[in-house]
Amino acid sequence: MNAHNRKPLPAHPVVAVVGATGAVGREMLLVLEQRGFPASRVLALASARSAGQHITYNGAGTTAHYNDGGAYLEVQETTPEAFADVDIALFSAGGAASERLREAVVASGAVMIDNSSAFRMEEGVPLVVPEVNPRAALEHHGVIANPNCSTIQMVVALAPLAALAPLKRVVVSTYQAASGAGAAAMDELYTQTREFLDGQPLTIERFAHQIAFNCIPQIDIFLDDASTKEEWKMVVETKKILSAPELEVCANCVRVPVLRCHAEMVNVEFAAPVSVDAAHEAFASAPGIVLQDDPAQKLYPMPGLLAGTDATYIGRLRHDPTVPYGLNFWCVADQLRKGAALNAVQIAELLLAE
Amino acid sequence: MNAHNRKPLPAHPVVAVVGATGAVGREMLLVLEQRGFPASRVLALASARSAGQHITYNGAGTTAHYNDGGAYLEVQETTPEAFADVDIALFSAGGAASERLREAVVASGAVMIDNSSAFRMEEGVPLVVPEVNPRAALEHHGVIANPNCSTIQMVVALAPLAALAPLKRVVVSTYQAASGAGAAAMDELYTQTREFLDGQPLTIERFAHQIAFNCIPQIDIFLDDASTKEEWKMVVETKKILSAPELEVCANCVRVPVLRCHAEMVNVEFAAPVSVDAAHEAFASAPGIVLQDDPAQKLYPMPGLLAGTDATYIGRLRHDPTVPYGLNFWCVADQLRKGAALNAVQIAELLLAE
Repeated sequence: MNAHNRKPLPAHPVVAVVGATGAVGREMLLVLEQRGFPASRVLALASARSAGQHITYNGAGTTAHYNDGGAYLEVQETTPEAFADVDIALFSAGGAASERLREAVVASGAVMIDNSSAFRMEEGVPLVVPEVNPRAALEHHGVIANPNCSTIQMVVALAPLAALAPLKRVVVSTYQAASGAGAAAMDELYTQTREFLDGQPLTIERFAHQIAFNCIPQIDIFLDDASTKEEWKMVVETKKILSAPELEVCANCVRVPVLRCHAEMVNVEFAAPVSVDAAHEAFASAPGIVLQDDPAQKLYPMPGLLAGTDATYIGRLRHDPTVPYGLNFWCVADQLRKGAALNAVQIAELLLAE
Repeated sequence: MNAHNRKPLPAHPVVAVVGATGAVGREMLLVLEQRGFPASRVLALASARSAGQHITYNGAGTTAHYNDGGAYLEVQETTPEAFADVDIALFSAGGAASERLREAVVASGAVMIDNSSAFRMEEGVPLVVPEVNPRAALEHHGVIANPNCSTIQMVVALAPLAALAPLKRVVVSTYQAASGAGAAAMDELYTQTREFLDGQPLTIERFAHQIAFNCIPQIDIFLDDASTKEEWKMVVETKKILSAPELEVCANCVRVPVLRCHAEMVNVEFAAPVSVDAAHEAFASAPGIVLQDDPAQKLYPMPGLLAGTDATYIGRLRHDPTVPYGLNFWCVADQLRKGAALNAVQIAELLLAE
């Protein structure tokens, strides 16, 4: 069954956040609160180990829990039964949890909006960035996938360009923040940096190598062709979201010692002419994009300064004379927000608007 | 007059390091010492403000200065007269100093090996990377230019590939260290990072913006086409060094919070097939290159771990299927050594060998 023959969502749905104690789960709760998401109830689900913890949440759908920080949610264990009354389940607890619980969630009648990579490339599972392919969200069969963080900000930027001329090839190099590896990884960047400055031995647990004052040219595991899974995701997910199977994407992913915004240097080759002015106008009027592009003022987006923001920021837009029709640009977005939690909540909003 | 009709260099030349108190100047002295450069005398020259300072130097050509750290050089003011007995002048004191002193240096009969960008693109001034175009050094007219740091490591990597098949287009994104902006900039990265961790106001003097936990997509000034001068340098210098005017280079330069090694993600398109295996072998046997490329062992070069090394390190070599004949690789080199001081001393060694 697809969205059109499922039970309609109530105007005030019950929302579960699965993985509520993680970096993305906490950000999902914050985004629900900040955007005034009209939940009738919000459940914070996590592993048995985290059950009983309190998470501050002052949005709609909170229950009778209050402490000095305002309202809070008490974390419950994620069990198949926990989804009985749930209408929308926002998952960010890893691919294995998503796979294990998918059947229970869908059988309960809830829509699963999944931040893991488990179902993204599955036929019949929409892979949605609301600014780019909102209608795809409505064709779901109980599961909607939230794309990879690096992919999301790139397709937000590519979509308005694709409306100007067909995209032929994209070469992207990423500058990815620690947050993409979770809350503990962000802590490790902090801790390790302090250890480095103090001349202490470095604690290396969450990353394969030192991340303080370093760049690691590996994100996720290696595949047989010596690319990484992160690079593969950027290739296949971009094609799926943009419905552009012919688009060539060459992705190169690097972790940098930044806390929570990803940056990307993007080179685009078009099949027809696109002027810098036209691209500038397309970006300026595109949903979800903020242009910060004034070389004379040294104005361009920077990942260390944009944590907590919602837009995809674009700068360094310029002509690339090395191909017939080329442009370069630099884009930055908060990995935990547009790259994960915000995009998932925006998908939930699309479903409600229907 | 060119190298062939200048007075021959003595086997034990008098060497001046101009800008001896700067990050590159100090590294030049260290490289001269470490490589056993057969100087008969070494002069440490700097601004009047630095005159009288002591710089540790235990190599050949030191004079009668000793303290607890071993031998040292006493810094003298850089004046036109200071070059009277000099055979080789290694300059790293900024373009203005190089321009001001060029005539005096050349008139004295010394060869100027200049690390600034002042003369790099001047016709008749060889732009030399000893592993790539050593013979160009011998065609000088008194001045040899040391290329831009980002350019040097890229051409060291591209040269063995160019021997396999003609290079058509290169798209490079850089991850450049603080050292490229000088010793004070490295200090600023340290200081600012500590301020950030301590929740203190940040000291921002050497960079246009915060560099701690940030990436700045601007190096050097902006040009009229919205590229930066650093990007322009990578384009024009690469073509000059490789004698490849037709090669297309799309360069994108970013400062990252790393101390002194630059990293680059390089995408290469060839005019004819080049296999990953052939590229691997070419790199393995090329001068100045160390391969660190074993995905199964998570082995690849990383800029935070290679400070003080001399090679250009290459990893993440892989096929790029998005063009007919494409490869991607990642390269890392110490910006102060191969990117500046070492390359300059290697040029001096080429002149001596002649």
